[in-house]
Amino acid sequence: MGVVTAADRAAGERVPKQDRSRATRQRLLEAAVACLAEHGWAGSTVSAVAERAGVSRGAAQHHFPTREDLFTAAVEYVAEERSGALRALFPQGATDRAAVVGALVDLYTGPLFRAALHLWVAASNEEQLRPRVTELEARVGRETHRIAVDLLGADESRPGARETVQGLLDMARGLGLANLLTDDRARRERVVGQWVALVEAELG
Amino acid sequence: MGVVTAADRAAGERVPKQDRSRATRQRLLEAAVACLAEHGWAGSTVSAVAERAGVSRGAAQHHFPTREDLFTAAVEYVAEERSGALRALFPQGATDRAAVVGALVDLYTGPLFRAALHLWVAASNEEQLRPRVTELEARVGRETHRIAVDLLGADESRPGARETVQGLLDMARGLGLANLLTDDRARRERVVGQWVALVEAELG
Repeated sequence: MGVVTAADRAAGERVPKQDRSRATRQRLLEAAVACLAEHGWAGSTVSAVAERAGVSRGAAQHHFPTREDLFTAAVEYVAEERSGALRALFPQGATDRAAVVGALVDLYTGPLFRAALHLWVAASNEEQLRPRVTELEARVGRETHRIAVDLLGADESRPGARETVQGLLDMARGLGLANLLTDDRARRERVVGQWVALVEAELG
Repeated sequence: MGVVTAADRAAGERVPKQDRSRATRQRLLEAAVACLAEHGWAGSTVSAVAERAGVSRGAAQHHFPTREDLFTAAVEYVAEERSGALRALFPQGATDRAAVVGALVDLYTGPLFRAALHLWVAASNEEQLRPRVTELEARVGRETHRIAVDLLGADESRPGARETVQGLLDMARGLGLANLLTDDRARRERVVGQWVALVEAELG
């Protein structure tokens, strides 16, 4: 279709390069989250992630100059992916609150939460990591809260509605923590079922 | 009073020695929890704890042959102390449910929870630690549940009462986790206030 100009050819060459760079970055981020979840902060270095991603150490450092850059970016990236997936699960918004709460709780029982937990706990003792992770956690927390309010159809102008949703998310985090060592899905489902019944009336 | 026998004298000499041994053990356990909370699992060795407690490494190893022995015993010891203190706070049982829930949440926002969190997260990646910490967590969790049921005056024969209390404790754990990086007491108190209102009707 039409004449291919020199500019088109230049663009054509540029795009694949950008694509490659984006794909490398994404491989590094996913490898970083997997590494954190499996080996914890002490076992998570830029070199270990580069090797896992099949990328040279130099290329990894080009994308992420420091260890802190790589791992905070990784947790943020995966959190965004999960948020998008959560919204996509309920394109119509709140229809079944039990399903929404179940999906929110699932956010805290997978490898992402495990990775984030390692990063949080490490940040509580490491001054270089702490401010960045605190800021990241606040940002991810606000976004999760926003999604929960939307999907649950909570009217935050009603007194108590905001705290009801916050408490649900805190409960989900606590269930995730309990799940770290013992995967007790049956217990989790009973607790979630009961609490959904408790909040139904409250959220109207 | 009366005649001091040789057996009495031997007992008199034995008791102080036992006392000294008990005091050393206790100093080691408290130093171990403080060390975990401040430096995490990677920074917590038997030597570091012995030094902190002012005890020789040999004496520390006499009480706790392995690193795993020392730190699981430490978290268990402090958890028992906290449980006792919690019961002592409410000698009459449930009078003010908001105060009880506030005290339960406080269990998860201090240095003990921080230390336990480091141990849990380390156990999730370390095979030597995992079975012991899983067992310990289950035991401490059951005891906390029992105390919560008593203090809240929950009748577990009522359907849903058990899950209501479990959900509260999961929420308390989640609030403790959020507190790890950002101490937001005001938010915590609003959430707790709202959830106490939600469970009041449920627990009867």
